[in-house]
Amino acid sequence: MKTHLDCIPCFFKQALVAARHAGANAKQQKEILDNLAKLIPSFSLSTTPPEMAKSVYALVNEAMGTKDIYATIKYNSNQLALNIAENLQTKITNSKDSLLTAVELAIAGNIIDYGAKMNLNVDTEIAKILSEENKSIKKSKSLHFDYTEFKNNLVKAKNILYLADNAGEVVFDRLLITEIKRLYPKIKITYAVKSKPIINDALLEDAIQCGIDKVATIISSGSDAAGTVLKLCSQEFLTLFNKADMVISKGQGNFEALSEAKRSIAFLFKIKCPVIAKEINSKLGDVILLYNNQIAY
Amino acid sequence: MKTHLDCIPCFFKQALVAARHAGANAKQQKEILDNLAKLIPSFSLSTTPPEMAKSVYALVNEAMGTKDIYATIKYNSNQLALNIAENLQTKITNSKDSLLTAVELAIAGNIIDYGAKMNLNVDTEIAKILSEENKSIKKSKSLHFDYTEFKNNLVKAKNILYLADNAGEVVFDRLLITEIKRLYPKIKITYAVKSKPIINDALLEDAIQCGIDKVATIISSGSDAAGTVLKLCSQEFLTLFNKADMVISKGQGNFEALSEAKRSIAFLFKIKCPVIAKEINSKLGDVILLYNNQIAY
Repeated sequence: MKTHLDCIPCFFKQALVAARHAGANAKQQKEILDNLAKLIPSFSLSTTPPEMAKSVYALVNEAMGTKDIYATIKYNSNQLALNIAENLQTKITNSKDSLLTAVELAIAGNIIDYGAKMNLNVDTEIAKILSEENKSIKKSKSLHFDYTEFKNNLVKAKNILYLADNAGEVVFDRLLITEIKRLYPKIKITYAVKSKPIINDALLEDAIQCGIDKVATIISSGSDAAGTVLKLCSQEFLTLFNKADMVISKGQGNFEALSEAKRSIAFLFKIKCPVIAKEINSKLGDVILLYNNQIAY
Repeated sequence: MKTHLDCIPCFFKQALVAARHAGANAKQQKEILDNLAKLIPSFSLSTTPPEMAKSVYALVNEAMGTKDIYATIKYNSNQLALNIAENLQTKITNSKDSLLTAVELAIAGNIIDYGAKMNLNVDTEIAKILSEENKSIKKSKSLHFDYTEFKNNLVKAKNILYLADNAGEVVFDRLLITEIKRLYPKIKITYAVKSKPIINDALLEDAIQCGIDKVATIISSGSDAAGTVLKLCSQEFLTLFNKADMVISKGQGNFEALSEAKRSIAFLFKIKCPVIAKEINSKLGDVILLYNNQIAY
């Protein structure tokens, strides 16, 4: 997906929020915005939003001497999600269609996104996911909920590449992976995280903190953008990406990076931005399970 | 009120929306954003948001050769509001406290603002005002609703300077002015509009289209910013401003421009932006009637 002009105001907002998270004072915040403004004329809209966002966050790190602005936030998001893991597992176990519930919860967990939801309260969002008991999730299902195709592909798959999105959300991913492995014990799953800190995207340590190592092989994609940008990825990852029977991609950033990729991908995410809502004819808050070979826009 | 750093992303959004209203194609839109980006490092945060916004809209006019991007929108907003004027008047006449209802409706009309509410549907907003029968207006009243002080000042006033905000909203202003004159027939009211087109702010022709000439004297403030920026105002206006027994100021833009003015002012507006919400300890959607001598922030 190409960057839209509407992403530009959002980059300024993200830079400001990230600068504040990094402890920038007002003068430093203004300098960061000024530096971003200087970059804008050279921004090409033919790149994807995660590639552009990478430059935005790099500006903040450069100005503040930081490497991982969201480190504490990521750790805490993981802990908050881990605290409710058992509760979520019970929901899955007790539901009529346990796979569907696991899929829905994995998408619900995608709300923990500091790029798109800048004033996020993870505690509140997690409480909402629990209290809603998936009612509102079902209500806000959009045009894109290709669950039958998802199931049909799962039945045939021998190996799955699962692209992680954010810290905290990883716990929800673990529950979906656990459910897939319970139903199809022979499937091998590889869980790909980002290679370097970018916003609150999951890294290797987040995957381990959330127990992914007990249910899947963890690798780094090589991408340090807030999405799996293929040209940034390692050869090892690309081989897996091309050969996997099924790719499950979590989050908006991965959709932005991979919507034009030349293979079938199951995109699971919540719509958190009006640009993407428009792009796929959905609305904010919609729950998306979209197979890219079904995109008709 | 000084411009906040959070206003910067919003300026980009406003530029983009205004460029599209002016018929800019994608290339022109990008050029306008690039030109705005080049201005940012020279922006001083010690000026008020309406002064900064003036430069933003000037960029769009310069690029597109336009003078009054919102001309048709303003005309239509006036007509839509005129269509329900009788209905609103009935509400005022039939209410227990007719002045309070007129004040509340005048604030409700402040929702017609293309600067703060960029994707506005005037028709829908007006329908909402009518259908809510002020219920939600009362519910969303904030800390700042100095109605008693407003009434006490009205009783003593011989002349009032009323600062207009947006087209369409002018009809709601006319109803409040009519109610004030019904209660206090001796009060003289001067209605000040902007001197040149800026967003959808009311001009002389809007005041006349909405029938203000039948209830008040209309003048131009001399300001062509989206707020009554005193240093841009004419001497005639400044004399009135300093001598008026009471100043009624409509809208966020006028609040931004005049919140630090050295005279008492009754600010009537709806909170449409998070920066102002934070500034006066309120929340989005709040209905504000604030006497500036009561500000304690």
